[in-house]
Formats: sequence, structure tokens, C-alpha cells
Amino acid sequence: MLAKQGIVSDADAEAITKGLREILQEIEDGSFVWRPELEDIHMNVESRLHEKIGDAAGRLHTARSRNDQIALDVRMFVKDAVGEVLSAIHDLRTSLIVQAELNAEVVMPGYTHVQRAQPVLFAHHMLAYFEMLGRDSDRFQQTYERADVLPLGSGALAGLPYPIDREFVAQELGFSQISRNSMDAVADRDFLLDFQSASSICMMHLSRMAEEFVLWSSDEFAFIRLSEEYTTGSSIMPQKRNPDFAELARGKTGRVFGSLMALLTLMKGLPLTYNRDMQEDKEGFFDTFDTLLATLTIFADMIAKMHIVPERMREAAQGSYVLATDIADYLVDRGMPFREAHGVVARLSRHAVERGVQFEELTLDEYRSFSTLFDEEVLAISVDSSVAARDVPGGTAFDRVNQAVADAKTQLVSERGGSK
Amino acid sequence: MLAKQGIVSDADAEAITKGLREILQEIEDGSFVWRPELEDIHMNVESRLHEKIGDAAGRLHTARSRNDQIALDVRMFVKDAVGEVLSAIHDLRTSLIVQAELNAEVVMPGYTHVQRAQPVLFAHHMLAYFEMLGRDSDRFQQTYERADVLPLGSGALAGLPYPIDREFVAQELGFSQISRNSMDAVADRDFLLDFQSASSICMMHLSRMAEEFVLWSSDEFAFIRLSEEYTTGSSIMPQKRNPDFAELARGKTGRVFGSLMALLTLMKGLPLTYNRDMQEDKEGFFDTFDTLLATLTIFADMIAKMHIVPERMREAAQGSYVLATDIADYLVDRGMPFREAHGVVARLSRHAVERGVQFEELTLDEYRSFSTLFDEEVLAISVDSSVAARDVPGGTAFDRVNQAVADAKTQLVSERGGSK
Amino acid sequence: MLAKQGIVSDADAEAITKGLREILQEIEDGSFVWRPELEDIHMNVESRLHEKIGDAAGRLHTARSRNDQIALDVRMFVKDAVGEVLSAIHDLRTSLIVQAELNAEVVMPGYTHVQRAQPVLFAHHMLAYFEMLGRDSDRFQQTYERADVLPLGSGALAGLPYPIDREFVAQELGFSQISRNSMDAVADRDFLLDFQSASSICMMHLSRMAEEFVLWSSDEFAFIRLSEEYTTGSSIMPQKRNPDFAELARGKTGRVFGSLMALLTLMKGLPLTYNRDMQEDKEGFFDTFDTLLATLTIFADMIAKMHIVPERMREAAQGSYVLATDIADYLVDRGMPFREAHGVVARLSRHAVERGVQFEELTLDEYRSFSTLFDEEVLAISVDSSVAARDVPGGTAFDRVNQAVADAKTQLVSERGGSK
Amino acid sequence: MLAKQGIVSDADAEAITKGLREILQEIEDGSFVWRPELEDIHMNVESRLHEKIGDAAGRLHTARSRNDQIALDVRMFVKDAVGEVLSAIHDLRTSLIVQAELNAEVVMPGYTHVQRAQPVLFAHHMLAYFEMLGRDSDRFQQTYERADVLPLGSGALAGLPYPIDREFVAQELGFSQISRNSMDAVADRDFLLDFQSASSICMMHLSRMAEEFVLWSSDEFAFIRLSEEYTTGSSIMPQKRNPDFAELARGKTGRVFGSLMALLTLMKGLPLTYNRDMQEDKEGFFDTFDTLLATLTIFADMIAKMHIVPERMREAAQGSYVLATDIADYLVDRGMPFREAHGVVARLSRHAVERGVQFEELTLDEYRSFSTLFDEEVLAISVDSSVAARDVPGGTAFDRVNQAVADAKTQLVSERGGSK
Repeated sequence: MLAKQGIVSDADAEAITKGLREILQEIEDGSFVWRPELEDIHMNVESRLHEKIGDAAGRLHTARSRNDQIALDVRMFVKDAVGEVLSAIHDLRTSLIVQAELNAEVVMPGYTHVQRAQPVLFAHHMLAYFEMLGRDSDRFQQTYERADVLPLGSGALAGLPYPIDREFVAQELGFSQISRNSMDAVADRDFLLDFQSASSICMMHLSRMAEEFVLWSSDEFAFIRLSEEYTTGSSIMPQKRNPDFAELARGKTGRVFGSLMALLTLMKGLPLTYNRDMQEDKEGFFDTFDTLLATLTIFADMIAKMHIVPERMREAAQGSYVLATDIADYLVDRGMPFREAHGVVARLSRHAVERGVQFEELTLDEYRSFSTLFDEEVLAISVDSSVAARDVPGGTAFDRVNQAVADAKTQLVSERGGSK
Repeated sequence: MLAKQGIVSDADAEAITKGLREILQEIEDGSFVWRPELEDIHMNVESRLHEKIGDAAGRLHTARSRNDQIALDVRMFVKDAVGEVLSAIHDLRTSLIVQAELNAEVVMPGYTHVQRAQPVLFAHHMLAYFEMLGRDSDRFQQTYERADVLPLGSGALAGLPYPIDREFVAQELGFSQISRNSMDAVADRDFLLDFQSASSICMMHLSRMAEEFVLWSSDEFAFIRLSEEYTTGSSIMPQKRNPDFAELARGKTGRVFGSLMALLTLMKGLPLTYNRDMQEDKEGFFDTFDTLLATLTIFADMIAKMHIVPERMREAAQGSYVLATDIADYLVDRGMPFREAHGVVARLSRHAVERGVQFEELTLDEYRSFSTLFDEEVLAISVDSSVAARDVPGGTAFDRVNQAVADAKTQLVSERGGSK
Repeated sequence: MLAKQGIVSDADAEAITKGLREILQEIEDGSFVWRPELEDIHMNVESRLHEKIGDAAGRLHTARSRNDQIALDVRMFVKDAVGEVLSAIHDLRTSLIVQAELNAEVVMPGYTHVQRAQPVLFAHHMLAYFEMLGRDSDRFQQTYERADVLPLGSGALAGLPYPIDREFVAQELGFSQISRNSMDAVADRDFLLDFQSASSICMMHLSRMAEEFVLWSSDEFAFIRLSEEYTTGSSIMPQKRNPDFAELARGKTGRVFGSLMALLTLMKGLPLTYNRDMQEDKEGFFDTFDTLLATLTIFADMIAKMHIVPERMREAAQGSYVLATDIADYLVDRGMPFREAHGVVARLSRHAVERGVQFEELTLDEYRSFSTLFDEEVLAISVDSSVAARDVPGGTAFDRVNQAVADAKTQLVSERGGSK
Repeated sequence: MLAKQGIVSDADAEAITKGLREILQEIEDGSFVWRPELEDIHMNVESRLHEKIGDAAGRLHTARSRNDQIALDVRMFVKDAVGEVLSAIHDLRTSLIVQAELNAEVVMPGYTHVQRAQPVLFAHHMLAYFEMLGRDSDRFQQTYERADVLPLGSGALAGLPYPIDREFVAQELGFSQISRNSMDAVADRDFLLDFQSASSICMMHLSRMAEEFVLWSSDEFAFIRLSEEYTTGSSIMPQKRNPDFAELARGKTGRVFGSLMALLTLMKGLPLTYNRDMQEDKEGFFDTFDTLLATLTIFADMIAKMHIVPERMREAAQGSYVLATDIADYLVDRGMPFREAHGVVARLSRHAVERGVQFEELTLDEYRSFSTLFDEEVLAISVDSSVAARDVPGGTAFDRVNQAVADAKTQLVSERGGSK
């Protein structure tokens, strides 16, 4: 670009380019001699270039400042990092859909307040995770767009006094836009906050999944068995499978929140433009990137290898009077106002509790003693009929879930095709 | 919708609608009698409806659950809140552009490390703020889109057993999408986290502006005088203008960060679906909304009324050898490699410091004793020529800034036209 | 004091004191007319005093500044707040000991990784909470000591030009020390950070208890039933007892963490001495105080009324091969090195799992086929013998726990006696 | 201890001790062969011991569990870390006192709201820092006490079935107490939270100092010059001294806050006892320890080498009508009520501002036209008389500050003598 714009001569530009290519080669084959006393990588390269091509090397730094160069480097790194995160989210979502398909008919209790509330399909639960991660994907996509702005050409803060072609540089370096204000360009770290914030929300989602895996792995729930590679055991207590990786993911959530808080605190109240405080922006970002990527990757594999215990899930879904709302809905369907139906079922439930039985053990006569709207069909109310009845968009009915899985697969395939 | 789908009869639907209209009227004219023992607003309304239309009132709650209704209410509130925030950001950006235009020719020092670095136009600095707030605007727009999803129809968690038309309800309530998974719909508070996170970043931006206003108001800088309504003074120290509102905004930044952290912490590790912890999502959100809106509104007015002291700014921009880079650029322009030019100016600066003079007080002979590339034109290097030279996109040159102001005005006008 | 030091005349001092007493009376009986245009309470009082006693009222503000007065007020409030918190912690610890005594013989599983690990006494578990809260008590005591320093006499920041007697004022106002540096005295909010930090740790402890109550209330654990006043149910699902208050306490933990973060962020990077940002120190503190006090109070009552289900606890403690370590210890006791014993029990456990039995169902011959060190006594290993064996200071053996309960009671009684 | 209690034989104990001594020697001279497949340091050592002494090595792990051992290791590390931090705080406080003594007579403006308010001694300002750091010292001392509790003997969670002597082990390992509840002992990380919290408050203090150093280094203030080793410059802008280390310290504050938040979040809602999440407690702690220690150490040296510019400080202290309160105090001293004196000086100040002069340029006649209480002595009011007048405990009067410096030195000496 500098040559194209006549800022350096063609001869110098060629010498510089050739020299840099050779230096890259030296770095790659390990023959480059790093000299720590030269402060940073830029000065090392420039010094070596001087040895190779003489004074023309002094033109390398033309029209650049450390401030806009650092901003450039971090933005390029963030763009790459987002790419890797998006791909890892894709893989994890794929694992969820694989489990949903493999266990398409498994019924489990849906919980509120960690209390059993209504039966749902296990696949429906996996699809809830799938949706959560879909929003994460969107957020990282938007982070990418915010990072995809070329700061080069902003100089130290005021812009540069050379007839540079910023749009051309943007194109060469794969940026879709150039920054519009030089002071903002060197003072801005929003794209890192976007990354930290998207990562915090994503880790929060993973921590919710982790919490469920921990509960489901307990002796009390016993809904799943995580594969041995993601648990630690006790050789003398063979049934013990500590869900260490799920716990670690849950624990690491705090660390990612902490890095978000660190960066917000760091940036708070900093006058424009560059302040050395901002050097502290990177370590937390790298740590968050590594943590998130590792967690997503491990979860993708851990979920793929997770063993489901359908009979425990169904058993839990059948207890605890979770069909009460279905019986109320049955009455509403036969014309009773909602509140009245609710009252009838409340009395019915108390009766069942007193007798110490579940609904399916009640006789039709018992039902009818509470309302004459009850007929034989009430005896057909079951965990399966309950699931089947939730036949609305987003509901847990088998066909709805089946369709949602199919849609999810289409989405995953199209992402693979059109990914960045 | 319930009538349209045959879930309640047309007669009931009409009675309910009519009754609700009357109740709204009662609430508005203050004649509605609230009964705290009925727990919440929904039960109060339903109970009054029962007094008016009898048993049909019991059908009001059909096909709804408290879980999906709460999610709906919060989403509707967030959508409105985002609208107000966007409008307040718009007003603040307008104030910045007004100041930029009014002071189009004012030169001030640009700072790095709170050290004077290069002269810039004051308008260029205002445009940096304008850009920062532009990203905030984008972020809130994306928050709006994330909130703009109808959860109704998800029931307690599993979907509903009625043939409801969710798309129709979405349309009626002004939502552009319906939620795709019922468990996710009642468990999700991402849109609140998006709001909190966008607010934290926006407050961070405002805290940076606040810090500069505090510094610029000091006796040492004395670049601006904030209007009396946004300062407190001491009647016996009449020159004292404590920039209280800027300080408060800076202080309130912590509070907004705290609410983000509170919500992330709250959601961390919660198993699906609804848990009562989530009731704690609202207070912090309301507080953040109020804080942010008030701060934006006050800043818009405070900046519009801020008095600039151009002579202090120019004086500061002229001191401290900030033209050194311009002199180096001058040599590069005449063919000297960048590194060599840098060395020459370093020696020249030391010479000036030793003599205790600024660059403009040096003679041409003195210049030429450091490099024969210097000619008469070096004497023309000034704060103004330095600003003029940064004539690249995003640079501080007068015409570039002028154009950026014009573009900003166009953007503000188009926003006003097409706002939500 | 001002009179004692001759700063105001005795006559003025008497008039002022008499006037202030009357004003206090007016405020208490509601006859005081507040005038908002007078800015704050100090000016309202002074103005009313002027109406009563004339110009002498102008001497009221002598030797005081708003900066040191605010610091004084907050410190006095914190000291009172700490007193209330200490008392609430005391009550909660009392509830824990009451439950420990009532259920002295109840055995439950101790968990690691939410996996059953070893049997413990329920009382031992309650004592763990007791210890956690004891550290909280210490922390608040230290917060009290840090707040117990009189800032009055520091003026705006430099000290006062009057011959005041600060030690006398400290004594009158119940402070044990005076501040040693006037700039620090008006710039310092450490005592609020100490309060916020102690509260955060205490809420973290309560959130751990809350999490256990939520789990223990689930159908899967069913170890406890919280009383109806601290749960919400579903009238149609009578067995459902949502542990709302425990969940809310867990959720409110985030809010308290957020206020700590808000105050740290607020204070970060503030130059000395007073800055208006610091006005934001109070709201978060009040909120934390209210939240913590309410949570402690509710927990004290909720735990006192909590219903224990000993048979479920014992049943859980007996399953899952938790006696494996006891069998290994048995072999070590008979001279086998620890590692070797560990290996024997690992093989034994695998054998039991394959046969699908618990240890107590194995015959002596089966035992002896793994090691001839086994004799009849191995058949006596049980949940109770396991508990009894942990007979070290801090261990779960019955006598140890009994003694710990007795010690706890002594401590509670002595606190009541010597509380502040 | 195990031998003393008869848990292992004397012969085995001797063999084990001798073997461990040899292994320590091997580790120290680098001949020890680490085998990563053995998981951790404990297993490596035990395995090597087995090679040396045979089966007796299997008794090494008797009466210990990984859970109580980890708790032990971290507590020992924290105790050492606190010792180093206390020593670094001591050194920094020493530097402050050295600067206070060297510049005992230097007057500077005291600020509120970054507005000049009253003249103070520079030494008084240094003493404010000294006080802040004194509280940090107390906090770390209390952290030490909280860490100084032996958890060993708690086993995995329930205590141990061996007749161990925990008090003896505590004494041997330098702990002043043993833990009172085994479940609490393995579940507790309060001492790390105490460390993180004390570190956050200390870093907040350092960030306030850092902010002042940044401002004081600016061209606008120019109160200090930091030594070259703690600044970076620009070779072509020789006056530029970017206060990089102060900025970095300010930036690193966010990181320490973040680690506190990470640990609080991690611990929130964890059921007892040990969960793998807790493994995440260490990295943030190490990072905080390193960050704090480095910052304290650098500040001690940076402050010791900081160059003061007394004439700039005095000049700033003389401007801006900061003597207004002294003139009001003068009138109060002559019998005028405070409010009235305040009004007189307000009118006087406006008069001076209108004439464009400072107080010292007013004539006695001008003074007397505002109040006849003014006499010749008013002309003696100066920055020095203002400082001298604040002659109360904690005030900025020369003798008070002198005495405070002497007291500080005594305190530092006694700390050195009696340090841990």
C-alpha cells in the first residue's frame, strides 16, 4: 500500500517485502535470533530487516504507530477466536441433537424449583440447551462484526499525515470496515468487552447444564452416567462417579465472570485515548477464550458419550402427582371454567394423597365423586398422554419435538456450509 | 385468540373483554379497590372480573401460566425500556454534534497516558464520543431483537394442551417471533443480561466522558466550565465548581456493573426451568434502567450547556513539544527513512529542552545544524499545520472532521425518521 | 464540647442545646415543617433553630464540615447495623443448635461432589454451618472495630482551626478511637467495604445452606420438609413444596456480591479526598444490610421449623457402598498397610456390585476369600459403627458431636451476656 | 505422630522418615524422576518411597485424605503469602515516611472533587496513604489468623477412625488452632476469600495513589516527576514521561477485583462438603498474590525515587481562593456567628473575582468595607498560616504532622521487631 500510494518507492517496497518473507522463513525454521533487549517483536523484525536490506528497513514503520498496531493485532486475534468458539458451539449443539435423536422417546420430569412439575421428552430438554447455545452463537457473531473494523491509519491518536489508502489495507487484511474516528480507534476495547460478555453468558448456560449433570449423576437422581473419562471415582467405592468435569466447568464460570468484571473495572473512568492500563486487557481475554473453548469442546464430547437411564427418568416422571394439571385441563376441555377445574383437582389430589395412591390408581367412581364430567377417558391420562397433549409450537409433544430436531439439523448443516 | 380458536365461546370472550375494559377504566380513574390478600395483580383483576361477569371470569386464565406470563411481562418492559434508552442516546449524540459544530475550529491537545501527545480538533474529540455511543446504540438494538420473542404458550414449562395460535398472539402483542422451546422460554433471562451488559458498557463510556469533564473542570486544566445547574459550588470560594453530576455518573457506573454481576451470579448454576431465584432479576434491571436513562438525559443537557475555553485548550496544545512527530514526518516526507528522522528529532528536542524553548522559537540555522533537509517550510509547522496534515479517513484534519460532523447529522436525522 | 473549649459561649451553647431538644421533640411528634428548598436535614434544623434562638443558631455549624459529618453519620449507622447483624447471626446459630439437639441421633450421608461419601450425624452437619457462621461473626466484629473511629474534627479535609477536644467528642458519641489523619478520615470508606465483604461471605454461606435445603426438599432426596410458611405450593399438586425462601436467599446472594463489586469499582482510582462519587456508597450498603438481616432472620425461623425425615436420611446413608473406607480402615487396624487394604476393598466392592448386593449382605466366607484378616467383626461394620469410629476432635462420633453441641451452647450463652 | 500414637510401628515410622528425607534430597539435587502417570506429587513420593523401604511405604498415607491435605497445603501457602505481603506493605509505608520527612515543609493543595480546597502539607498527604495501608496491614493480619487453623485429621469429610493427636500435629506444623468440625474443615475456603478481599481493598488504595501519581505527572499539574525506570518516554518528545507503572497498577486493580468475584461466584451455592469446583480457588489466588506483591514492591521503590516539585505545589496551593475558609474562621474567631461570617466572605470573594485578584492582593480598607471586624492581622493570612491553624489531632499543622511522622516511625520500628 505504501508503494501503491507513492509513500515509499517501489524498490524499497520490494526490498522490504522480500526481506520480511525471508524473516518469516527464519522464524518458522527456528533460525531467527531473538534479542530481548530490542523490547518487542516489531523491533526485532525491523532490526533484522536492517541487517538484510540496509536503510530501507527504516521505512517499514512508516505510517504506523504502536497504538493503532496493537488495536489491529487484538482485533485480528479476536476475529480468529470467535471463529473457533462458533465452531465449538456448533459441535456442542450437534452432540445435543445426537442425544435428542438417540433418545427420542425417553420421558423425564420437567422441573421448576428442583421440584417435579410436568413430564417432558428428554429430547425436549436437550433442545432447550440447543436454543440457549443458539443465542450464544448470535452473540459471538455480533462480537465478530464489532471486531471487524480496521483501526490502522489512526496513528498514535490523531490520524496520519501520509496519503494512505485505508480501504485498501482493510481489504488486504480481511476487514469489512475502517474505523471512523482515530481517537476512538485507539481508545476502544468494546469488542473485547463484547467477547467477555458473550463468554460470560455462554459459561452461565454451560454452568446450568453442568448443575443438571451433577444432580442427574447423584445417587438420588441417577438419570445419567457420565463416561469414565469425564468422572473420577474411588477405587474402593466403585459406584462413585464424581462428575469432575461438570463441576470444573461450573467452577470456571466464576473465573470468566471475574475477567469480564476486571475489564469493565479497568476501562471505567479512563480518559481518552490510550492509557497503559489497557495493556491489562489481554490476559483475561486469553484466559476466557481458553476456558470457554476447552469447556465447549469437553461438553461436546462428554454429552456425546453420556449414558442415559430412561427407566429412572420415566419412574421419576410418573411419581409426585405431576399429572394434576392434565386432569384439570381435561375438565376445562369438557367445558368447566379453569378456576373451577383447578378447585376440583385440588380436592381430588388431597384425596389421593390421603389414600396414599397416585392418580392412575384411582377408580372412575372415585373420579366421578368429584365431578360428573369425568368419564372413562380420564383413566387414559398418563405421562405419555400428558406429553402428547402439549401439541403447540415449542411444546413437548412428540411430533413437535421431532420437527424441532429436524429443524435443528437443517440449521446445523446450513451453518457448516456458510460458516466464516 | 381463545375465542378465535374455539377455546372459549364467543359470548364468554366478549364478556371477558368488556369486563377487562371496565376494570382498566376503574384502575385509571382510581376507583379500583386493590385487595392485598389476593397476592398479585392477576388475581385482583380476575376476582373483580368474577364480580362483574360471573363464572366466565374463570376462563380468563385459560392457556396461561404464571411462568410464561412473567417472562412475557418482563420482555414487554425491556422492549419499552430499550426504546427509551435509544432515544436518550440519540439526544446525547445530538448534543455532542451541536458542541462539535459550535466549536468547529477549536484546537486542543490529544492525550495518551494523560500526557499531551498531539493536537486535535475539539470537534474530533466529541466525534470519538459519538462513535462510542453509536456502538451502544447497536448493542441496545440487538438487545431489543433478543427480547422480541413471545414466550406465551409455553405454560409452566412443557407447552399447553390447547389449540392456541401463538403466531396470532405474537402479532397482537407486537412480537416479531415466537419462542421455539417451552422449557427454554420460561428459563431464559438472556435478554436481561443483554440489557445489563449493554448498559454496563454504555456507563463505562459515560464514565470516561465524566472523568474527562472532571479533569477539564479542574483549575489545572480549566478547559471547560460546566453550567451551574450541574455543579455545586462553595459560596465562599466562588471559582469552585465541583462537577458533581459528572462525578455521580462515574460513581453510578459501579452500581450498574454490580447489577450485571448480580444477575450473572444469580443465573449461574440454576437447573432448568424456573427457580424462584429468578424473581431477583427485576430490581437490578429497573435500577440499571433508571440510572442509565437519567445519566444519558443529564449528560445530553450538561454537554449542550457546557462552556468551552478555547484559549486554554490551544495554549495547552502548543506546549510540551507535541509537534515533534510533525517535524519527523516532515523529514520522512523529504525522503529520510522513518527511524533516521526519529533520531534527528530526538536530538533536536533535547537541544530545545536544554535551551528552554519550544520548537517554534528555534531558528532555521539551528534546525539545519541537525539536518540539511530542513528548509524554510519547517518554520511553518504549527498546531494548525499538524492538525491539517492528518488528512486521512478518521483523521483530525479540519475537512475530515467537518465531513464527519455532516455524516453524523445525516445519521441522526435518519434515526429520527426510522426509529422504533 | 464547643462550650467546654470556649469556642462558643456557655449561654449560646445552652440556647443551642435547648433549641435542638425542642426541635427533636417537634420532629418526633410530627409538627416539624420540612422545607425541601433548604437542601438537607442539617439546614432544616439550623434554620428552625434560628427561628427559635436567633443569631446564636449560626454557631451550630462551628467546627464541622459536611465531609466529616457524613463520614461520622455513616460510621454510626454501620456500628448499629453490625450490632443487629451479630444478633441475627446469633439467633440463626441458636436454631442450628436446637435442630442438632432435637435430632441428635439422626444419621445422614455426607457428600462430596453431590455423591454420597461417608455417613455423618445430621447434628454434625448442622455444626458445620455453626462454624461457618462463627467466622462471619468474627468478621463483623472486626468490621465494627474498623468503623469505631471518630472522623469528626477533620473538617473538609485539613483539620480544623479551633481548639476542639476530639477525644471528648469520641467519648460522648461512643467511639473508642479518633482518626489519625484528616485527609484519610474524609476519604476513607474501608469500613463500608469491610461490611460489604463480610456480608458477601456470609451470604455465600447462606447460599450453600440454601442449596442444600433446595436439594433436600426435592422428591429425589426428600430429607426435609420446610414449613408451609417458607414454601409455596400448588393447590392441585399437594406434594409440591417449592422452597421459595431458600431459593430467594440463594438468588439474593448475587445482589450482595454486586453491591460489593459496585463499591470497589466506585472507589477504584478516586484521588483524595472527597469526591461526589462517594455519595453512591450508601444505597448499596443499605440494601445489603436489609437483605442480609432479612435472610438471617428468615433462616433462623425456617430452620427452627424445618421438619426432618430421619428414615430417608438413614436409608440414603446405607446405600452406595459408603462403608468401603470403614472396611479398609478395619484391615489397616489389623496391620495391613493402607495401600494394600485399599486394593483389597476395591476388589471386594467390585465383587459386591457384580452380585448386586450391599456390603452387609456379604457372608464372612466371601470376605475371607479376599483377605484372611477378615473375621466376624467385619459383619458388625455399619453406618453406626462408621460414625462411632470417627472419634477425633472435629469428628462425627456421637460423643464428639455431643460435646461440640454443648460447647456451642456455652458460646451462645456467653455471647448473649457480653454482646455489644 | 502416627508412631507416637501407636498407629504405625516405630520401625516403620523411622523407615518412612528416613526414606522421605532421602527423597527430599533427591528432589533438591534434581535426581528425582517425576512420573506424570502417577497423577500428583503425593503418589510420586509414595511410589519412590515404596522402592526404597518396601511395603511400609503403604502406611505413609494412613490417617490422611486428599481433601484435608489440600486444605492444609493451601492454608500453609496463605500463611507464607500473608507474611510476604505484610513485609511489602511495611516497606511501602517506610517509603512514604521517608518522602514525608524529606519534604517536611512542602505545601500543596488538598483537593475535593479534583478542585483545590485547602492547603495541606505534602507530608500530611503521604500520612493519609500511610493510614490507608495500616488498615490493609490489619486486614492481612486477620487473614493470617483465619488461615492459621489445622484441618488435618478431618479425613474426607467425617473425621478419622485413628487415635491421632491433632494438637500435636498443629504444633509441629506451626498452627495455633485445630479445626472444630471436619465437614466445615474440608468445605471452607473463607481464608482465601479473606485474602482476596483484603487484597482488593489494598489494590483499591494503591489505585487511588496511582491515579494521583498519574495526575501529578501530567503537564497540567506537574507536581512530581517519576524516575525514568518507572516511566516510558518518547525519544522525540523528551518531556513526555508516561507513568506506565502507576497506570498498570491502576489497571491491575480490576484483575484483583475480578479474582475476588470469581471466588465468591465459585463458592456460591455449593453444597457441602468438597466439590471439584473448588480446585478453581487457587489460580486466582496465586495471581492476586503475585500482582499485589509486585505492585507493593514497585510502589515502595517508585515512591522512594519520586522527585517532588515543591514550587509547583505551592503555586497551586496559593491560587484559587483556597484561603476563603481561613478568612471566615478569622471572623468566627472574632465573635461572628459561623453563618454570618460565611456570608461576608462570599461577598468578599465575589469582589476579588470581579477585580481579578487573589485575597493577598486586597487592601485592609477593602476588607473593612465588608466587615469592621477585619484588622491588620487579616493580611497575615496565608497558605502557611492556614496550614498552621489546623492544629488539632489529625490536622495538617506542621507540629501535628511532625509528631505523626515520628509516631509512624516508631510503629514501623516496632513492627520490624515483632513481625511474624
